[in-house]
Amino acid sequence: MSKVAILGFGVVGSGVAEVLKRNGAHIGEKVHGSVELKYILDLKDFPDSPFGEKIVHDFAVIEGDPEVDIVVETIGGARIAKEYTQRALAAGKSVVTSNKELVAKHGYELMELAREHGVSYLYEASVGGGIPIIRPLKQCLAANEITEVCGILNGTTNYILTRMIRAGLSFDAALKEAQQNGYAEADPTADIEGHDACRKICILASLAFGRHIYPEQVPTAGITGVTLSDVAYADSCGRKIKLLGRAIRGEDGRIRAFVEPHLVRGEDPLAGVEDVFNAITVRGNAIGDVMFYGRGAGKLPTASAVVADVMDAARNKDRPKYIDWGPGGEDVTLPPDDVSSSWYVRAEVPADRLRQLLGDVTLLARAGAPGGECAVLTAPMTRGELDRRLSEVETGSVFRVLED
Amino acid sequence: MSKVAILGFGVVGSGVAEVLKRNGAHIGEKVHGSVELKYILDLKDFPDSPFGEKIVHDFAVIEGDPEVDIVVETIGGARIAKEYTQRALAAGKSVVTSNKELVAKHGYELMELAREHGVSYLYEASVGGGIPIIRPLKQCLAANEITEVCGILNGTTNYILTRMIRAGLSFDAALKEAQQNGYAEADPTADIEGHDACRKICILASLAFGRHIYPEQVPTAGITGVTLSDVAYADSCGRKIKLLGRAIRGEDGRIRAFVEPHLVRGEDPLAGVEDVFNAITVRGNAIGDVMFYGRGAGKLPTASAVVADVMDAARNKDRPKYIDWGPGGEDVTLPPDDVSSSWYVRAEVPADRLRQLLGDVTLLARAGAPGGECAVLTAPMTRGELDRRLSEVETGSVFRVLED
Repeated sequence: MSKVAILGFGVVGSGVAEVLKRNGAHIGEKVHGSVELKYILDLKDFPDSPFGEKIVHDFAVIEGDPEVDIVVETIGGARIAKEYTQRALAAGKSVVTSNKELVAKHGYELMELAREHGVSYLYEASVGGGIPIIRPLKQCLAANEITEVCGILNGTTNYILTRMIRAGLSFDAALKEAQQNGYAEADPTADIEGHDACRKICILASLAFGRHIYPEQVPTAGITGVTLSDVAYADSCGRKIKLLGRAIRGEDGRIRAFVEPHLVRGEDPLAGVEDVFNAITVRGNAIGDVMFYGRGAGKLPTASAVVADVMDAARNKDRPKYIDWGPGGEDVTLPPDDVSSSWYVRAEVPADRLRQLLGDVTLLARAGAPGGECAVLTAPMTRGELDRRLSEVETGSVFRVLED
Repeated sequence: MSKVAILGFGVVGSGVAEVLKRNGAHIGEKVHGSVELKYILDLKDFPDSPFGEKIVHDFAVIEGDPEVDIVVETIGGARIAKEYTQRALAAGKSVVTSNKELVAKHGYELMELAREHGVSYLYEASVGGGIPIIRPLKQCLAANEITEVCGILNGTTNYILTRMIRAGLSFDAALKEAQQNGYAEADPTADIEGHDACRKICILASLAFGRHIYPEQVPTAGITGVTLSDVAYADSCGRKIKLLGRAIRGEDGRIRAFVEPHLVRGEDPLAGVEDVFNAITVRGNAIGDVMFYGRGAGKLPTASAVVADVMDAARNKDRPKYIDWGPGGEDVTLPPDDVSSSWYVRAEVPADRLRQLLGDVTLLARAGAPGGECAVLTAPMTRGELDRRLSEVETGSVFRVLED
């Protein structure tokens, strides 16, 4: 018998309440005991909600109720959510979260606190919405040395790029459409600038490689610089532009993590991931490439991942699960300066000049290109080498090409 | 500290030995104790193998050695493998297997036996090679009522179909190529007739729906009837032919499971699964569709899934994991007779005649079609209805169309 409190009755929080109610019998059966929602913490009242009577306004009520053994944190952000998480763990309650910002910024210390108090801190819903990825990474790939994690981690930007590619919408028009459909927030900065994807690759990389990797260690570029001409050039060579978060372990054991738009081959499974879907590829030394695909966000998918964690916490009350990693540090990462790849370069210079500077390149063409515009794919080189060669050229777009 | 015995030193068995050796330090660290290979049971000796000295010929040595707490069964088949599995479980040893035939045929009784003796029976490697699917199905999707499991479950047939589609090879030529590349066995019956896919959908469905579903409850058709003209007609309507294993839960709670070639829309993520890759889609009432993708077979991917299970067994020695299901029975399934869908029909009759019989159809065309040949997509109907309408027509191919 477990009693649950939900912190924050927003989209995900209310979804959790719904899933707990809708699949209640099924859930009780699976955990061999009941899982009952006792409180919902929110600033507001919800008199018309079927859950209205469970609303409380003071976290201390939850903190001080020994019956509550599982706290679901769906507040978001890294301030009040952090305080309540700490207080809940310290009070001996397991915490389940969908809050990627908090896990990416403070995961290690919260996991340590959970260990100290013999409870679980679970965060399956923080990456990939309902896609099961955290446990497969930790458990099923346990026998592999993981060498790279790479994914389409943000549904909003993937929707925008898909609409640019499929419907020929400009970035601004596609963003507006995404907002109208509820796929982008009024302030879309965290999505379109890549911060959301950055937090998620931090979580995946920390788990895959065993040390906390912080957002500030991950150079991040968003998709605001992607134009329809870039989309057309990519199409001309059978590629699609995708915002990828990647974390690569070098032979030296250091992690190079980054978020930036990539040109992805049409045959790559990642190229087929459209709209708000997410996909995460994990490369292991024995398993090869494995991909996980599904809706990366949305009320019910995310809520179902939260509830799966709640069930896990309920089932393992007397033996908490630690799905955690070691401390971060400057010795964990290196900037991705030495990660060599082919590059897509668009610039307002004659092709001959680009060829002179970059050596062996593949020239791209698109219908309706203005005179003087030129786009190429380079031979593999590091970003430093590329920038050095292009130091005297003003470039339009420069995107990495995902290797085959 | 766990000691392991491997039964059968074939492709997967030797892969398990290799992965245990190669990733040994990493594995020991993760399970907080060592995992050591003590015996390999095989009929033959392997004097030149680095594992040669571990070979034994008598299962009783393993059975009687109290140090051995984990037995890896990679013998295959459902006879001797079953006997050794039963004896190992009865001797209080956890058993890890990649043997889909055994799990599909006798999973329930072996899981019961494991419970009785307080040990684990784990089979992650029996479906999807290295793709983590068993645990995600059981744990991460726990909060969902699953309504369908559908997948490309056999690498050999997917390779053959890919070569027919991409290179225009006939079925026979593609099969021969698959054999030359080691993707098909000398006797390919179990693959091309769909038996292997049938076993795997039995395992997935049993786990997803909680009752044992036996191979004989799953009508199965393979790909030997797929011709290049079918491939061309499918292409003409933007579809690809894929062998799918499916298990659908009806509103009545009964499971309709079947294996047969389907026409799959080009935009469906399953259409992009090529060569020997496998993919499994799970549909839940909260999560929507989630897909798992990777190499469905091969020595190291499969071995890595086995080793992950070994680690799980080692880590949970004092608290065995039960990833199991309830008993089977006639009340569990229904034949898929009432599963309605659109159908692809190719026949040697005039289009008008087909239209007369089938009503509203979409006519397909292909270059070089002989006079009198006709292919259509029908409106949704059951197979019974289709057969009734076509009772007087001799059909070439009839394949189900995967709904959008």
